[in-house]
Amino acid sequence: MENKERKIKLAIAGYGNVGRGVEYAVSQNKDMELTAVFTRRNPEEITPVTQGVKVYKIEEAEHHANDIDVMMLCGGSATDLMEQAPYFAAMYNCVDSFDTHARIPEYFAAVDAKAQKAKKVSVISTGWDPGLFSLLRVLGMSCIPNGCDYSFWGKGVSQGHSDAIRRVQGVKHAVQYTIPVEQALAEVRKGNNPTLTTRQKHLRECFVVAQPNADLNSIEQEIKSMPNYFCDYDTTVHFISEEEFKANHTKMPHGGFVFRTGTTGKDDMHQQRMEFSVQLDSNPEFTANIMVAYARAAYNLHLKGEMGAKTVFDIPFSMVAAVSNEELRRTML
Amino acid sequence: MENKERKIKLAIAGYGNVGRGVEYAVSQNKDMELTAVFTRRNPEEITPVTQGVKVYKIEEAEHHANDIDVMMLCGGSATDLMEQAPYFAAMYNCVDSFDTHARIPEYFAAVDAKAQKAKKVSVISTGWDPGLFSLLRVLGMSCIPNGCDYSFWGKGVSQGHSDAIRRVQGVKHAVQYTIPVEQALAEVRKGNNPTLTTRQKHLRECFVVAQPNADLNSIEQEIKSMPNYFCDYDTTVHFISEEEFKANHTKMPHGGFVFRTGTTGKDDMHQQRMEFSVQLDSNPEFTANIMVAYARAAYNLHLKGEMGAKTVFDIPFSMVAAVSNEELRRTML
Repeated sequence: MENKERKIKLAIAGYGNVGRGVEYAVSQNKDMELTAVFTRRNPEEITPVTQGVKVYKIEEAEHHANDIDVMMLCGGSATDLMEQAPYFAAMYNCVDSFDTHARIPEYFAAVDAKAQKAKKVSVISTGWDPGLFSLLRVLGMSCIPNGCDYSFWGKGVSQGHSDAIRRVQGVKHAVQYTIPVEQALAEVRKGNNPTLTTRQKHLRECFVVAQPNADLNSIEQEIKSMPNYFCDYDTTVHFISEEEFKANHTKMPHGGFVFRTGTTGKDDMHQQRMEFSVQLDSNPEFTANIMVAYARAAYNLHLKGEMGAKTVFDIPFSMVAAVSNEELRRTML
Repeated sequence: MENKERKIKLAIAGYGNVGRGVEYAVSQNKDMELTAVFTRRNPEEITPVTQGVKVYKIEEAEHHANDIDVMMLCGGSATDLMEQAPYFAAMYNCVDSFDTHARIPEYFAAVDAKAQKAKKVSVISTGWDPGLFSLLRVLGMSCIPNGCDYSFWGKGVSQGHSDAIRRVQGVKHAVQYTIPVEQALAEVRKGNNPTLTTRQKHLRECFVVAQPNADLNSIEQEIKSMPNYFCDYDTTVHFISEEEFKANHTKMPHGGFVFRTGTTGKDDMHQQRMEFSVQLDSNPEFTANIMVAYARAAYNLHLKGEMGAKTVFDIPFSMVAAVSNEELRRTML
């Protein structure tokens, strides 16, 4: 899309790790500016990094629809977005990173109804998975139809698993790293199209600060046997001091891999492989960066008269890029 | 896009390695069928693998416009496509893999004019580079705007460089492998955003069968000093027997890497990396597979009433995939 003189005005709803990431991301995109932050907290508690950005309570959102091009929904999928996304979609072009895979169809429908009625665009489930990984899975299946795909996550912090450990009695702090099994990655890269169990794909490594006098053995057993979260995995539990935890385990790195492997040609004689990976010092900031790229798409789609809920599958990259189609063809093709 | 009962009818123009690859690719896509091959050769010389496929001379193309949904232009960029693409674009929806980067703008304009007039869609410059690699470059620049991108090719056969060696006096057969420099890949993966010269990025390894009594030293010097093709690279020349050449050097493997590395967040403190790679036993068959995926997009775009020349940047993946948007959201997001 053409670079406009007028900047795209973004606002952030939910000023946590992703929200702050959006703020930094906007500063890296010359065609955008941040105008406001909306929060459920007391606005006086929040001081955005960017000069001149106003902070409002979420309930005030209805009064600012004319000043904001795209609302960045930075709340969590577990609780916030199911409620907030339809609320904002009825007033604003929106972008979110809704990542509860199983509930995407109902979420899409709820957001779509509101966005259609408001003649606005909501791009749902951006980020890297769902998001970039989803794009690569579809590209893989389309370009190597006779094949298998594999997604691996890590090494990185799983917020959900860390939360689950913190609910165990006697645990003061905890972080859980999801780690892809090297042997499984190697088998996939060889093009063997292996069938891999949950246990064969990922390891789970936990670092726990216990409360004084807690029963460490019982904590370890409770973690390792936790259904859904840990019992299907090889899980390691390390007990560490609070100092070590604060020094080494408060960052949010992550990463992952998407593979498509298969065959082409006469008698399937040729193996072909696509591999995509990300390695991230900051998971929330990368998610935020992708959301901001898709904010440009939401804006461009709205200018074209499109409306309703969209996913990354519906949006050509020319709408996401900050440069004109002509320049894309000349410099990037 | 919805899977239709009616199959998409493809035809191939140019029955070489890529054309045959298209034929095999069609057999892997249940929503497609191959109906015809067009050739500059004598049609009687060509026997398609697929039963019932007719073979015609290219000049007969104008008589079949009603029986074919998408024409797959499988000729070479160097000579065929500049002429053939506008010819076919005036009658058919088309897909090609035009890869002369510097001439893409003029090629786009020539094809676009014909396709617009015919109310048909031509998807130009598909394949893996241009094509998938281009998509990944744009995704990288959009999601990590404060960063650098790097494309590496290989290990694989460069047809252009092999041809250049064969033009050297005394050379009977030759193949040239482009090889990315491991050290350069490692530097990029570290996130150092290195500045790399041509020589630092790729090696060129040549396997040559000389004519009897040829001056090997002179052949080697002529190859290594060839402007544009070899003089800017560390080039190795191996002289081998015809038997060894035929046994080990007649396949067409290839591969490559696209990286985007950069930083996000406060004071650029977080490094973020995206890496995409392909490893291919057959370069022409993979190119063909991607062309066939974009044939589906060309058909879908035409059904929607779109027209003119398009690139991979203009086309959402929902148009490329063989399954409905609803299924994509439910299973791939």
